[in-house]
Amino acid sequence: MSDCPFSHITIVGTGLIGGSIGLALREAGYTGRIIGVARKQTTLDVAIQRGCIDEGYQDLTTACQRADLVILCTPVSGILAILPELAKLPDEQPIITDAGSTKATIVQAAEGVLRSPELFVGSHPMAGAEKTGPGVSRGNLFQGMPCIITPTQTTDPEAQARVEQFWQFIGMHIVHLTAEEADHSAARISHVPHAVAVLLFEMAERLGGLDVSSTGFADVTRIASGDADLWADIFMENKESIVDVIDELDQTIAQFRGLVVKGKRDELRALLDQVKNHRDTWIKRRTQS
Amino acid sequence: MSDCPFSHITIVGTGLIGGSIGLALREAGYTGRIIGVARKQTTLDVAIQRGCIDEGYQDLTTACQRADLVILCTPVSGILAILPELAKLPDEQPIITDAGSTKATIVQAAEGVLRSPELFVGSHPMAGAEKTGPGVSRGNLFQGMPCIITPTQTTDPEAQARVEQFWQFIGMHIVHLTAEEADHSAARISHVPHAVAVLLFEMAERLGGLDVSSTGFADVTRIASGDADLWADIFMENKESIVDVIDELDQTIAQFRGLVVKGKRDELRALLDQVKNHRDTWIKRRTQS
Repeated sequence: MSDCPFSHITIVGTGLIGGSIGLALREAGYTGRIIGVARKQTTLDVAIQRGCIDEGYQDLTTACQRADLVILCTPVSGILAILPELAKLPDEQPIITDAGSTKATIVQAAEGVLRSPELFVGSHPMAGAEKTGPGVSRGNLFQGMPCIITPTQTTDPEAQARVEQFWQFIGMHIVHLTAEEADHSAARISHVPHAVAVLLFEMAERLGGLDVSSTGFADVTRIASGDADLWADIFMENKESIVDVIDELDQTIAQFRGLVVKGKRDELRALLDQVKNHRDTWIKRRTQS
Repeated sequence: MSDCPFSHITIVGTGLIGGSIGLALREAGYTGRIIGVARKQTTLDVAIQRGCIDEGYQDLTTACQRADLVILCTPVSGILAILPELAKLPDEQPIITDAGSTKATIVQAAEGVLRSPELFVGSHPMAGAEKTGPGVSRGNLFQGMPCIITPTQTTDPEAQARVEQFWQFIGMHIVHLTAEEADHSAARISHVPHAVAVLLFEMAERLGGLDVSSTGFADVTRIASGDADLWADIFMENKESIVDVIDELDQTIAQFRGLVVKGKRDELRALLDQVKNHRDTWIKRRTQS
């Protein structure tokens, strides 16, 4: 395993993702500094107490002094608000990356406002949980998971290489996509599944069924317990891809409904069997990696 | 805890559900006989080896001799095929119940063919897993889970009471519904969520996204790894309720899509927050029970 290419890392937003990055760095043997930024002192206190960060500040400028990497780990609207502040830092701009759940808006904003846009590298580490805050952070959150990197023609290749090495250092593997592809993929495997989980629960509560539901329903709706603000941001910022994928899903559901109505047992069985087998293989491959 | 009101139980279909019933009986302190029926001798061998059953037979008549309860634990099409055979048993008919995933078809068939229809009590224990076979059975599968009971005007109240006591003995709590309500509830919290999980996975594989998907997507699609034959049966036998619930879901998705398109962040946030809070409460209540 290669070393971490940074020695003074500032994590903006020390919740589940930011806190877990700190823990993962330590577990991977990182010996540099980890500075945290949060709005509330109590969040910083918990993050320090849990070993996620060494020091914490409510002031961005103080926290970014001497940083060679700044990672933005707040919800998307927070990242969009912080970028202009980063442009005003008195010293030379460090390499900046983010863990935002949508990429096109963030990358565009970063390259529009930062003094050194070539040192911004958009990232989407595909890891999370339905709980929030540094209290639930854990060092193995990223282990074996994919991290999407969305470089543009502006991006400095060396900055990109170092950011990729950073995510690999905490156990992730890199997937390169354009910001638009990243947003579309995320809509398909995260944002729309999230919406569906929310709507299935809401329907069962409103129309009946919750009192007889079991483990399967708890699993399929687990992600619906995610943070409302974080997800409201996502549904606003990745609107176009989400609507496209909802339309894809509608079509797919309509086809499935047709097979049920027409009693096409063999075709349904073939579909169910194909998905079961491909999913089993996918899970096995994930577990081995 | 009350005693098990049966002492000679025959389990037809010793897979995940049937095998787990056997284990759960033993863990609850049941001291009577447990006889298994399966098509393959190897299934019976594994079930005996794992302690799910005491003896196993491929012949239904032999297995049901002296039984005071017969539980049908095969997929729905198997149950429908076995009911006429049970009508031909040479001795007096024992109490019969089932663990079938749809109720209207089964209850109707049972009351139509059995010699003593009043001794049939339709059940739907809401427990399961994506794995199949006696090798994955476990004694705690039913603990704290709901069991739907669907009595009709034909059902003998004493037979019903004894079947309910049986499910309670292995840790379940009873919910009374008509067969039609049971099928509609099951469509809402199990069958349509299953279809959606299958379709989300199929879409991600066909259109892209699987290579960047994470734990959330694995959870939301877990049930899609269920047995294809079992589920093809369900989609055929509970067709009407499933189509109704697909239409309910379509409407709900269309409303959600409207909020996204119109950028209604506050309304979206309120919906997400409501579902998160209600789901958290629901999970807490489940865990405590």
